[in-house]
Amino acid sequence: MLTEKIMKHAMQQYINGFNSKDSKLLTSLFSDTATIEDPVGGENIVKGKEAITMFYGRAVEMVDRLELAAPIRGSYGNYAAMAFNIFMTSGGKNIQIGVIDVMTFDDTGKITEMKAYHGPGDMIEG
Amino acid sequence: MLTEKIMKHAMQQYINGFNSKDSKLLTSLFSDTATIEDPVGGENIVKGKEAITMFYGRAVEMVDRLELAAPIRGSYGNYAAMAFNIFMTSGGKNIQIGVIDVMTFDDTGKITEMKAYHGPGDMIEG
Repeated sequence: MLTEKIMKHAMQQYINGFNSKDSKLLTSLFSDTATIEDPVGGENIVKGKEAITMFYGRAVEMVDRLELAAPIRGSYGNYAAMAFNIFMTSGGKNIQIGVIDVMTFDDTGKITEMKAYHGPGDMIEG
Repeated sequence: MLTEKIMKHAMQQYINGFNSKDSKLLTSLFSDTATIEDPVGGENIVKGKEAITMFYGRAVEMVDRLELAAPIRGSYGNYAAMAFNIFMTSGGKNIQIGVIDVMTFDDTGKITEMKAYHGPGDMIEG
C-alpha cells in the first residue's frame, strides 16, 4: 500500500540521486509511462522511460547539487511536494534556482507525474 | 497581462491576509468560481465565493500565523507555488503544519484553483 512515508522516501531519493549524480537511481523512481513537466508552463513534456532516462542523464551533468528548502510535504492522497534549490554553474557563473516539485505516485510507489514549478524570476546569480 | 510578479504578489497577500486575520483580503484574491482542495486528497472541495468566504472566515480564527519556508516560486504558465508553515494552537497545544500550496490564476490575476499539499506526517506538536 502506498504511504506518505514511501512517497517522502522516494522524494528524498530524488534529491540524493542528483547529489550523487546517479541518473539510474533517478530514473528508477519513475513508472514506465511517467510524465515530467519541467518547468510547468514550458513547451516540453517528457514522457516515458526512454525520454526520462535521457532527461536525467543530461540533468545530473548540469546540476551541481540540490538542497531541500523545507521538509518534504505529503498529502491525503497519492501526492507529495517539496521545495528545494538547484545549484549549478553556467558560463562560469554560479546560478541558484528555486523550485517546487509536485509528484504523483502509483500504488507501487513509482512516480507517474512530476511537475516542477519555477519561473524566470526564480533564478538568481551568485 | 498575468505576470509572475502579479502571481507572487497575490501569494504574499495570502500570507499577509492570514497574519492580519483579514478574511476579506483572502477571499478577494479568488475568482467567483474558484476551487480549494485543502488538503489535497481530502474529502472536501470548497467551491465558489460563498463557500470560500466561509472557509477563510473560519481559517483565520483557527490559525495563529503563517510563515514562508522559502521564497514563492513562479512558473512559465499561470501557476505559482509556495512552501510555508502554519502555526496554530489546538486543545492547549502548539501545532505546526508544513504545507505547499499550488495556485492557478486567471488572466485578471485572481486565483481559480488552490491545492494545499500536507498530510498527517506534516503536523508536529510543540
